[in-house]
Amino acid sequence: MSDEIERLEIVRRVFSTSPAEGISFDLPGVSLIADASSADDAAVYRIEGIGDLVATSDYVRGPKFALFERGYLTLHDLGYYLAVANLSDVAAMGAAPLGLLTVIRYPEEMNDHGFEEVLQGIADACRKHGTVCVGGDIGGAERLILSGTALGIAPLGRAILRSSGQPDDLLCVTGPVGTAGAAVIYFTRVKADGQRLADQDEKTLLDAWRRPRARFDVTRTLAHLGLATACQDISDGLRATVEQLSTASNCGAEVTLEKVPIDPVIAKVALAVGVDPYALAVSASVDFELLLAVAPTNWTEAVAAAAMAGFRLHVIGRLRKESGVVAIIDGAPQPMPGVRWRHQPGDVASTVVEGLKSSLRGDA
Amino acid sequence: MSDEIERLEIVRRVFSTSPAEGISFDLPGVSLIADASSADDAAVYRIEGIGDLVATSDYVRGPKFALFERGYLTLHDLGYYLAVANLSDVAAMGAAPLGLLTVIRYPEEMNDHGFEEVLQGIADACRKHGTVCVGGDIGGAERLILSGTALGIAPLGRAILRSSGQPDDLLCVTGPVGTAGAAVIYFTRVKADGQRLADQDEKTLLDAWRRPRARFDVTRTLAHLGLATACQDISDGLRATVEQLSTASNCGAEVTLEKVPIDPVIAKVALAVGVDPYALAVSASVDFELLLAVAPTNWTEAVAAAAMAGFRLHVIGRLRKESGVVAIIDGAPQPMPGVRWRHQPGDVASTVVEGLKSSLRGDA
Repeated sequence: MSDEIERLEIVRRVFSTSPAEGISFDLPGVSLIADASSADDAAVYRIEGIGDLVATSDYVRGPKFALFERGYLTLHDLGYYLAVANLSDVAAMGAAPLGLLTVIRYPEEMNDHGFEEVLQGIADACRKHGTVCVGGDIGGAERLILSGTALGIAPLGRAILRSSGQPDDLLCVTGPVGTAGAAVIYFTRVKADGQRLADQDEKTLLDAWRRPRARFDVTRTLAHLGLATACQDISDGLRATVEQLSTASNCGAEVTLEKVPIDPVIAKVALAVGVDPYALAVSASVDFELLLAVAPTNWTEAVAAAAMAGFRLHVIGRLRKESGVVAIIDGAPQPMPGVRWRHQPGDVASTVVEGLKSSLRGDA
Repeated sequence: MSDEIERLEIVRRVFSTSPAEGISFDLPGVSLIADASSADDAAVYRIEGIGDLVATSDYVRGPKFALFERGYLTLHDLGYYLAVANLSDVAAMGAAPLGLLTVIRYPEEMNDHGFEEVLQGIADACRKHGTVCVGGDIGGAERLILSGTALGIAPLGRAILRSSGQPDDLLCVTGPVGTAGAAVIYFTRVKADGQRLADQDEKTLLDAWRRPRARFDVTRTLAHLGLATACQDISDGLRATVEQLSTASNCGAEVTLEKVPIDPVIAKVALAVGVDPYALAVSASVDFELLLAVAPTNWTEAVAAAAMAGFRLHVIGRLRKESGVVAIIDGAPQPMPGVRWRHQPGDVASTVVEGLKSSLRGDA
């Protein structure tokens, strides 16, 4: 799910369901563990004897498809992306996917072939992640509108919330961050201005949008073993994600910036626009890697389980009692760099690049 | 869920999940009973020992909000409507509501007060229907976009599909149809042209949009007792709904037109635009009453259960072996009148009124 910070307070107030009491729904054995007021990646219903049912909705067709409008992404890619953006929120709760619902509204000028391309992208992404699209809504609209809902099930009591992190938990990420954000900057600014990276670099950047993956491999492993205390996908960029997870857990965090895994292509894009690569990597970027909090006592077991399942956990810092997020740079605490994602009209690439440059100049 | 007929074939083909085999999801005890290819009101998962989980998505902000653009509906009304449109599809499956997810994307010019009005409408509708909004997605967009997903649970094995109707089942509706469609025609054509109905009539018309209700009272009663063989909400208008349910059930249908319950205000609107009131009532209209098929052997028990629960079943016809839908008018079979809802850009009121007039003239 994605949110705009200021208005989340309104959502919390209006949709609050008195979590102290829980909701019984007149359905014995069903209780609501995470609702709209918890602002997690997904809502969670605990169903006794069965598991934790998670449900999440994401609208994806916004200003961020700058790369589609410039011809770098196809309609198939948009369908694929729609599915993964929704499935990723299920993965972030430690759940396996049950299925996807999609809303596809198209303008008059989209022909049957274009419509089917979107559907094929959705179907291919579902297949790749071991699930299916089970329904939704189609019909006309003034322009293309894509939205989805993903359902999943975690083992009973094992859904991983954002809010259960503890001070001293290790913070780790499951792969390189910032690539999707760098892609937008590269294709809309650098390449548009006549500079070019190698084909392989361009492919790396584009694949962050064309073939994202929801990390069910990670959450299946760690949720089944109960080895993560908190989890969130990094679809708002790493800085915002660390802030959200630590705040939800009533903690602060420190992040050792040089430990954040980034793809070498980030450095090339950062150089081209004259900003710091790590500051760029933690800025607004729709990454579908996960940020996890792992208790120090579980660390060895978590690393072993990850190795068995074929992935790596990159430690980037830890949660701490003191509120606020600090970066450790050259061994010293500093304000966390990076520019957060905002749902604002206009040009995300410019917001990030100008934001990073003005903080270099000390305008902020 | 709502659909455009031609493109449903593409949806069926691309999203087909081999219903013969079912889907196991590697989750013991979970099977998929209705998927995207069944084009039902909702997808259905059968969860052994628990119940039938239903999930449905509906986008509601399209050209049909002519009444909002003309100032007859508030933002609160739109939120209320969004919730009910989604909950109604859960009711149509014979399920009780588990919760709602909503996607609310707003343009820059919508202030916090307007945003909160939408949320309050959603929250009020949820409360009225005994459920809650558990999450979703908020953020900016170029214009207001409203979409939702509703979840529900029916007793195990008791979700009511569109496709299980049998020849000779009685077709019945749960209340007057056509009011929402007549409202659009009245406010955009009749009143706009200077003719006025009484305040009470205007209120009846507007309330179809302002305070619709999902008929959980009906489906709880009939689903729990297993008394309906097929069900669908009438949100595409009665003609289209009878066609869809009978086709899905591999049947045809006959509808005795004068038995269709309509509010007297429909006759006034029909008179003002010079069309037949019953033809208007069965045309495109977003009604949230239900169309049910009931086996003749269950009829007495169904009527008794309805009376106990405080609602009425209006018999309007029956399913039959022969394909196609016919109207019985003055005792004789006729082609079914009425103009179907289409997701097309432009003016629904004109489509319906001109369509009805041209069929009167014999143009069709």
